[in-house]
Amino acid sequence: MRIRAPLTVSLFLSSYLEMFLSDKVKHGDMEQIESVLQNIQSNHMEYITDLQKLVRQPSVSAKGEGIRECASLVKELLEKRGINARILELEGANPVVYGEVIVKGAKKTVLFYNHYDVQPAEPFDLWKAPPFSGELIDGRVFGRGAADDKGEIMSRIAVVDSYLRTGRDPPCSFKFVIEGEEEVGSGNLHRYAEKYRELFSADAGIWEFGGVDTRGRPLLRLGMKGLLYVEITIRGAKRDLHSSLAAVVPSPAWEMIRLLNSLKSQDDRITIKGWEDRVVPLKDWEKKLLEEYPFDEAGSLENYGLKQFINGLTGYELKEKLFTKPTCNICGIQAGYQGPGSKTVLPNEIRVKLDFRLVPEQDPEELARLLREHLDREGFGDAQLAIMEGEPAARVSPEQPIALAARAAARKVYGMDALVELSSPATGPLYVLTKNLGTPCAAIGTGHPDDSQHSPNESKRLDTFITGTKWVAQTVHNFATDVVEVK
Amino acid sequence: MRIRAPLTVSLFLSSYLEMFLSDKVKHGDMEQIESVLQNIQSNHMEYITDLQKLVRQPSVSAKGEGIRECASLVKELLEKRGINARILELEGANPVVYGEVIVKGAKKTVLFYNHYDVQPAEPFDLWKAPPFSGELIDGRVFGRGAADDKGEIMSRIAVVDSYLRTGRDPPCSFKFVIEGEEEVGSGNLHRYAEKYRELFSADAGIWEFGGVDTRGRPLLRLGMKGLLYVEITIRGAKRDLHSSLAAVVPSPAWEMIRLLNSLKSQDDRITIKGWEDRVVPLKDWEKKLLEEYPFDEAGSLENYGLKQFINGLTGYELKEKLFTKPTCNICGIQAGYQGPGSKTVLPNEIRVKLDFRLVPEQDPEELARLLREHLDREGFGDAQLAIMEGEPAARVSPEQPIALAARAAARKVYGMDALVELSSPATGPLYVLTKNLGTPCAAIGTGHPDDSQHSPNESKRLDTFITGTKWVAQTVHNFATDVVEVK
Repeated sequence: MRIRAPLTVSLFLSSYLEMFLSDKVKHGDMEQIESVLQNIQSNHMEYITDLQKLVRQPSVSAKGEGIRECASLVKELLEKRGINARILELEGANPVVYGEVIVKGAKKTVLFYNHYDVQPAEPFDLWKAPPFSGELIDGRVFGRGAADDKGEIMSRIAVVDSYLRTGRDPPCSFKFVIEGEEEVGSGNLHRYAEKYRELFSADAGIWEFGGVDTRGRPLLRLGMKGLLYVEITIRGAKRDLHSSLAAVVPSPAWEMIRLLNSLKSQDDRITIKGWEDRVVPLKDWEKKLLEEYPFDEAGSLENYGLKQFINGLTGYELKEKLFTKPTCNICGIQAGYQGPGSKTVLPNEIRVKLDFRLVPEQDPEELARLLREHLDREGFGDAQLAIMEGEPAARVSPEQPIALAARAAARKVYGMDALVELSSPATGPLYVLTKNLGTPCAAIGTGHPDDSQHSPNESKRLDTFITGTKWVAQTVHNFATDVVEVK
Repeated sequence: MRIRAPLTVSLFLSSYLEMFLSDKVKHGDMEQIESVLQNIQSNHMEYITDLQKLVRQPSVSAKGEGIRECASLVKELLEKRGINARILELEGANPVVYGEVIVKGAKKTVLFYNHYDVQPAEPFDLWKAPPFSGELIDGRVFGRGAADDKGEIMSRIAVVDSYLRTGRDPPCSFKFVIEGEEEVGSGNLHRYAEKYRELFSADAGIWEFGGVDTRGRPLLRLGMKGLLYVEITIRGAKRDLHSSLAAVVPSPAWEMIRLLNSLKSQDDRITIKGWEDRVVPLKDWEKKLLEEYPFDEAGSLENYGLKQFINGLTGYELKEKLFTKPTCNICGIQAGYQGPGSKTVLPNEIRVKLDFRLVPEQDPEELARLLREHLDREGFGDAQLAIMEGEPAARVSPEQPIALAARAAARKVYGMDALVELSSPATGPLYVLTKNLGTPCAAIGTGHPDDSQHSPNESKRLDTFITGTKWVAQTVHNFATDVVEVK
């Protein structure tokens, strides 16, 4: 199921929380988890050094750059810490690195989902240090993938290693599923999940990202938007022409401007017929989570260098749009001459890359069809539409034990309640775990909003790495030792 | 004056032509011009070899690449053929190569205007041979600048050399003004013309381009459109952001789409307030030239690989738009990720390069102001507008002796009447000669529509090089020996 059973309206989340955020902890395991947290603190530079190694191995899935080399390195880094590892392969897919520590007699298994592939590093000239240098500057590891997602991979390895270093059995078994196509839409993860259903089975999952907000408050994310990524190409004359011919030669660039202009209204709504037909109104508990969620508007604006959000939105409406509304974004557009100075040319081709974020019940395949129909209807029948990625959205109920375990862990590690985000505005193959495999997941981790994920100067902060790793370790402890009991 | 005195409506061009297209030639000079034409035929490979050298020297003014090296090479190639040459310099400007052959006792001087700078060669990957290799393949010299304008430079040198090789004084003096900024708007040519007014003075000019149409018919061009070239930049967040934020973070790319969409109507008219206020209705003689002009629609469509022209235009309306209407063209647009595959990014900057072609009486400075006012009025006050080039249009009357000389020469060299084009749809600093210096010019040359000027695989055909050079030589002869008398 894409949306897991929600709480009934009468049972508010807070009533659950108060119960276990108090002292309902099994004291028999207290000693081990304290050791684990201590180990993370003491040994963090070992993991940071491994992270630098990992960043120095490019693994840009969009370009097929360094993928197998990186998978081998990840396997090596797992094995180095006593985690059994193997590389899984499927025809036509990037390899998945699978790791496990099976604890005899343990009743539960926690699965870590991560990815070793990274975004392209362009534009190169905006990086302070080369994007694959992995340099440690001012308490951060710089480089493409340092945050998304190699820092998280090392954090999960650190958790397991820190348990193993206690000399006692961990309270649960661990599994790692580390894929190599997340940044290009995880198009084969569902095939791996189908083939290795048994191997991937677990009682709960820790998702590949998470962390704190701009004010350092821990964030627990319970869902993800879906994604439809397309490239549209319009071609004209058989070659670029002298721009003096613009008076009479049709311009693919101008046609694209009109095409794009037909997709959105002035107030930023998608105007493709039928696009929002399946969007379900928010339920009361979802609205309540949104209302309670203290989104840091001022901090975000400062972080992004903006004066205001779209249409001057603030408060509930801003959060509602960010976490629960479909989007249509221009990721890239290119035509003609882009160098210095001027060139008087009529480009014969224009390409645009668009990403649409989807919300629960929207179906990427259906939307791709609606987009094609829109183009044909609006007079852009000649435009080529290439579907590059499609992933449905997913949401996890806040009553799931792994979610409650994470909240209890946040209170311990950060000394404050976690903010619960109804859904990340971003996309990942969460549905493969939650829906296809039936494994509830919590998205927590070591991130910070100024990590510059997907941007130049991506970096992983050492401070959030340490604290986030502790949060994951404590969450595992809570979940495995049944600190969290669901009524 | 920007538009030279037109014919009165009652005197049709054809009546002039019939008079001198007959046999009113001074037979005393017939022997020399026959020798000249023979020399061009016999020695053309010498000039083609020099052209290859010239193409191999990059000279991309937009990037400041190889400019001075190319100016020196041009000077050398002039001197090699007995033409006195010097390099003129102005602070902050690319050098002008000036050449001359002063014939004692000659009553007239013909000036050749050309340019040694070339367009950027991008996109490199579409070239069959490297763009500065100057390779000779299938009867063409390939390379950026082979046609525009290095082939024409060599053609003018060939004309003078062929006169000098006859062993007799040429019938007139020759001057060369070969500038290095034509492809970036000739921003300093008017300064050179002011400083070297005496040096540049001549009775008539041969412009830097011309040739035949798709069916091999000689084309005489009598004017040029003007140009306003701008770059518009919109910036947003202080860095590229993860595209999941598109729900709430304003997108410079979408703003640019709306901005561009505000500039033109669906039927391809410029919608900037006041843009066409100064456009003068065509006079009767201009309409007549347009009507008589046999534009090769089918040949052009085939050459460009198109099914139809904008809005399905044909006939008079098509010619009217091509030769006499203002344009607004997207030369380049760039934002975000343009590599293979997908990248989910919200680009924080978008840039677009636009060229507007202007018609007589439109003033580039005034239009730049109107554009800025339009952007402010339409809500794009944050968009940065950089003015990169501005040149007014120019037209030359078909009754000018140099125009009539060119028509008579066409009949001799091609065996048919030249097509007279009211105005080139392209732009050049013609106004500097016709208006600032008062020198009427005819645009003729060695070009062919399939030369791919400004496009990948630019080339110069040997066959049109030979015939076009003969046309220029014969035009000089006719003009200098008063074959052409204006009533």
